[in-house]
Amino acid sequence: MKNTTIGIIGAGRIGRLHAENIIHFSNVRLKSISDIFIDDVIDWAKEIRIEQVVTNYEYIIKDEEIDAVFVCSPTNTHAEIIIEAAKNGKHIFCEKPISFSIDETKEVLNAVEKAGVKFQVGFNRRFDRNFLRIHESVKKGVIGNPHVIKITSRDPEPPPVEYIRGSGGLFFDMAIHDFDMARYLANSEVVEVFAVGANLVDPAIGEVGDIDTAITTLTFENGAIGVIDNSRKAVYGYDQRVEVFGDKGNLTCENDRPTTVELSTSDGVHKDKLKHFFLERYKDAYITETQAFIDSIQNGTPLLCDGNDGLRAEIIAKAAKQSYQKGRPIKINN
Amino acid sequence: MKNTTIGIIGAGRIGRLHAENIIHFSNVRLKSISDIFIDDVIDWAKEIRIEQVVTNYEYIIKDEEIDAVFVCSPTNTHAEIIIEAAKNGKHIFCEKPISFSIDETKEVLNAVEKAGVKFQVGFNRRFDRNFLRIHESVKKGVIGNPHVIKITSRDPEPPPVEYIRGSGGLFFDMAIHDFDMARYLANSEVVEVFAVGANLVDPAIGEVGDIDTAITTLTFENGAIGVIDNSRKAVYGYDQRVEVFGDKGNLTCENDRPTTVELSTSDGVHKDKLKHFFLERYKDAYITETQAFIDSIQNGTPLLCDGNDGLRAEIIAKAAKQSYQKGRPIKINN
Amino acid sequence: MKNTTIGIIGAGRIGRLHAENIIHFSNVRLKSISDIFIDDVIDWAKEIRIEQVVTNYEYIIKDEEIDAVFVCSPTNTHAEIIIEAAKNGKHIFCEKPISFSIDETKEVLNAVEKAGVKFQVGFNRRFDRNFLRIHESVKKGVIGNPHVIKITSRDPEPPPVEYIRGSGGLFFDMAIHDFDMARYLANSEVVEVFAVGANLVDPAIGEVGDIDTAITTLTFENGAIGVIDNSRKAVYGYDQRVEVFGDKGNLTCENDRPTTVELSTSDGVHKDKLKHFFLERYKDAYITETQAFIDSIQNGTPLLCDGNDGLRAEIIAKAAKQSYQKGRPIKINN
Amino acid sequence: MKNTTIGIIGAGRIGRLHAENIIHFSNVRLKSISDIFIDDVIDWAKEIRIEQVVTNYEYIIKDEEIDAVFVCSPTNTHAEIIIEAAKNGKHIFCEKPISFSIDETKEVLNAVEKAGVKFQVGFNRRFDRNFLRIHESVKKGVIGNPHVIKITSRDPEPPPVEYIRGSGGLFFDMAIHDFDMARYLANSEVVEVFAVGANLVDPAIGEVGDIDTAITTLTFENGAIGVIDNSRKAVYGYDQRVEVFGDKGNLTCENDRPTTVELSTSDGVHKDKLKHFFLERYKDAYITETQAFIDSIQNGTPLLCDGNDGLRAEIIAKAAKQSYQKGRPIKINN
Repeated sequence: MKNTTIGIIGAGRIGRLHAENIIHFSNVRLKSISDIFIDDVIDWAKEIRIEQVVTNYEYIIKDEEIDAVFVCSPTNTHAEIIIEAAKNGKHIFCEKPISFSIDETKEVLNAVEKAGVKFQVGFNRRFDRNFLRIHESVKKGVIGNPHVIKITSRDPEPPPVEYIRGSGGLFFDMAIHDFDMARYLANSEVVEVFAVGANLVDPAIGEVGDIDTAITTLTFENGAIGVIDNSRKAVYGYDQRVEVFGDKGNLTCENDRPTTVELSTSDGVHKDKLKHFFLERYKDAYITETQAFIDSIQNGTPLLCDGNDGLRAEIIAKAAKQSYQKGRPIKINN
Repeated sequence: MKNTTIGIIGAGRIGRLHAENIIHFSNVRLKSISDIFIDDVIDWAKEIRIEQVVTNYEYIIKDEEIDAVFVCSPTNTHAEIIIEAAKNGKHIFCEKPISFSIDETKEVLNAVEKAGVKFQVGFNRRFDRNFLRIHESVKKGVIGNPHVIKITSRDPEPPPVEYIRGSGGLFFDMAIHDFDMARYLANSEVVEVFAVGANLVDPAIGEVGDIDTAITTLTFENGAIGVIDNSRKAVYGYDQRVEVFGDKGNLTCENDRPTTVELSTSDGVHKDKLKHFFLERYKDAYITETQAFIDSIQNGTPLLCDGNDGLRAEIIAKAAKQSYQKGRPIKINN
Repeated sequence: MKNTTIGIIGAGRIGRLHAENIIHFSNVRLKSISDIFIDDVIDWAKEIRIEQVVTNYEYIIKDEEIDAVFVCSPTNTHAEIIIEAAKNGKHIFCEKPISFSIDETKEVLNAVEKAGVKFQVGFNRRFDRNFLRIHESVKKGVIGNPHVIKITSRDPEPPPVEYIRGSGGLFFDMAIHDFDMARYLANSEVVEVFAVGANLVDPAIGEVGDIDTAITTLTFENGAIGVIDNSRKAVYGYDQRVEVFGDKGNLTCENDRPTTVELSTSDGVHKDKLKHFFLERYKDAYITETQAFIDSIQNGTPLLCDGNDGLRAEIIAKAAKQSYQKGRPIKINN
Repeated sequence: MKNTTIGIIGAGRIGRLHAENIIHFSNVRLKSISDIFIDDVIDWAKEIRIEQVVTNYEYIIKDEEIDAVFVCSPTNTHAEIIIEAAKNGKHIFCEKPISFSIDETKEVLNAVEKAGVKFQVGFNRRFDRNFLRIHESVKKGVIGNPHVIKITSRDPEPPPVEYIRGSGGLFFDMAIHDFDMARYLANSEVVEVFAVGANLVDPAIGEVGDIDTAITTLTFENGAIGVIDNSRKAVYGYDQRVEVFGDKGNLTCENDRPTTVELSTSDGVHKDKLKHFFLERYKDAYITETQAFIDSIQNGTPLLCDGNDGLRAEIIAKAAKQSYQKGRPIKINN
């Protein structure tokens, strides 16, 4: 099996998650990780046996041994890093969103295309076994033509208000995953968006100009319509459900739970609440997305989630935000 | 126990359903039924032992023995019948919608109020054991403040196109039940409506100017937001689900099925499809709504569903239709 | 439609249940009910409009207008009543068990056969929509040859100890339904029985010589094996589950619940406990069994549950009791 | 974190499974694996980076660097290897059963005890998240006193007849896991066993003197009773369910499925069949049992499954076999 050498840029929560997954891949060498706060990283990196820790990501991008980089740094640094990495011929895995600006994202996509490198965006949910199955079933025509796409996506608790302030807002930071999922399930582009939003979870979120609850209606090119409901706080866990309804049937899936145990008592029947958050729920999906990326590099399999997918989700997020602000539907020209 | 004597106006499908339920009430006498096509009715009425069949509903309205009437005639005859019945001091149960015009419905409500009679509108779903439980749980504060109300409402098959032509359209004929359910679950009034619609099930429905698929977003006075998705054709049966999400929890319910049997084979696991349509699904709810109406007459218990509920649902339906036609959200002044 | 006139013997809980069901049948006339405690019965009977209440069941058996009788008196009176009723040409519906003695039951069956009347035994569970579906699916070969039959049958609470004392014990009073269900699901006769029992619920039950918990293993003529677990007390409600496993698949069914509502909170997910007991759980099954009996009388459809079924269940119950007492398996010669 | 060095004896299916799990433990060094068919092993071992492959397990047992061994060789070699390993002071993880003879197993236990080493038996199911939760809930008293323990355990397909011939039979080879599970869930010892068996799956299994279908009834020291139903062939997948019923409630768990996706069509509702077999179903349980073993070595946490557990399960298996052969219950003196 061909070996691929990898460097990771950014050793925050998501960078570490990828590192800890990659280290177990037998056909991959995890050579380096970069972080500006190198002191916080060094012990952890040693323990999981990453060969090299550097402060400056340039060492990684210019390292001729390295075939591919994982861009896990803050969103506002993505564009510069990706463009440079592409110029140096590195394959690139980038966490979402690619950038906060559609124009910048387009620039990134041009650079990547020109360089002819692989570019995968971290829409990890596409690799969840349930959603992947529904996507494939829709594609196979199991439910005929899709008429209605429904997504429920609720976090167990809001991030710190400080995070929210710089996050781009609910549509860009949180719902962007769902916008991608909607396109993925419908196998069609979104042509119109209408969003209502509310600040119901925590007034502090409203004070930094964001909302915490939203319903977004989508119209697709193929005629289907869809709806996403989002909340920053579901006390019963990370609620992630999708549904695709068509003229020949309906596809749904249940949330995952820690166990399938049911306790029946004189008070009723009790089951576990949902898995707490994305690290538990999408544990396997994170591994599968990395496998797919490595596979694409080593064997030329097509990417399941590329730069264009990243761009499209951002365009929908922007339209949703605009719709919410202006109180009217917004058209998208694809 | 006090006896109540009842007359039914209109012996179509829904009039007969009520008659066959009422005949089993031990504290009620079903004296008369009227229908202009009397010949079609007479054998059936005899078999279930209704005492009297008449052509003209006036006989019922003026019969001094009769305490209450069920108005099950076509919608365009409702207003006249109700107003006259109210004048004659009859309590009134009326199938939805009260009329096709908000103004006419208001007139009806005035007449009823002036007469001081009981007036219940046939939103049978309010009496479904599952939805009733969710309504009561929300009211008790079990999930705290409601943030998101979600309703999925799909018929198993569209009515004949001829019916659709005179039905008032999807929002007035079908979704009106869901608009009522949304108010019932949110315990709050709707202040804004946005609807997208599509003609995906059958082009013939589009040819008579209607849609068969819709997503309607609602904003409530209490800050909650909601969404209803409708389809005229779900091949797997009558799909009726509601969900209320709040800051302390989430309430959902599953569809009813003919049996709970599961068959596991080498092909997978197979369960029954859903109950076919409203007669099967809401069989018990139709009985319970009549019990509640009789109870209100005999014991003065408050109505669970009155004329104002009928009016509000019509106002939302009108706003939804307008929103779909104009492509923008419509405000409602309550 | 032909009319059938019915008399009920015994106005205890089950006699009244049948009366209240029969009164709603449009093709049946419920003429009389007998009970030795006539004073307790008279008001109720009037309210539901039974024409006649008598002290002595002989009036019913000799009434020439009456076509069929429901025998709902205590078990020790069954044999005499049935034999006399049969001699008078009445069709007979008899609550289980037919008698406490196999020999007496055989006598009853002879009398019934000689008289050529319909004789149905009240194994109401055969008419439950779920179990009926499983029975039919097994018969159609949907799971191939049955290998394993499993029944869980737990009451929500034990009857009064005084009742237990005269009940014939757990195997005769309670498990007899399950022995019948096992034959019904396996479509085969039982050839060997082994039972273990315990007194775990209430020492008072042990003091009157009975057990409250049991596991009974069955071997069937067709090679299949089966197991029934019984308890007199399941705090979470009336637990009634069956399963048939074969070489082509497995059939199971869930318990019925009052609602399908699920509440998710920070404590987990909560559902209703089971329907409380047989009156709720088998409400529809009681109606269906009566319909089937009337149908057999009026249209000659075959009985789904006849005297032989009553006898077989008693023979298994006797063998189970013996097995428990002797601590070894007991063979049955069919 | 302290490091532990491990050797594996036997590189068959289960030995490789453990190797592939252990290699990912950051606090463990997998130094050696032994197999008499060394040529089949060498490439695989190299690929997953095991340092050393040897033909003779003695190299492992006498290697002073090695702290613990995994005994994954054929059952008939276990006793000799374990005794020798214990003498050399190695901690031991042994696949079930310890041996085919109760006496030999007792000898092994003596040797292990004398040596004072850790000894864990490979009852992997104890580490399944669902069964572990039920075990813990029972222990905490969540359902009060256990009254009934129920286990369904069906393989998706029988092993080759050649394997069955040397396997010790259904009770020793397959049901032994369930006998352990029964003790684990009841938190009590078995005092009596009764088993019925049948040859229904494949006549070839009967020809080598074994059965493929069985129901085993258990009586426990604490008064509870239990039942296990086994089949060698469930066409719908690996069916593994347990239930513990007590005076305060009931604990059950559902089987795991590959996905939670449901497809509703005009034919009904379809779900995935069960996970195919133990490698899929107990994937995580195999990792968790190894973690627990390492934890016990490194931190002195108590073993969840020791030599006595191995012995007890063998004693029950022997009693079940005897019961089946003699057609009567067999007592066990604990």
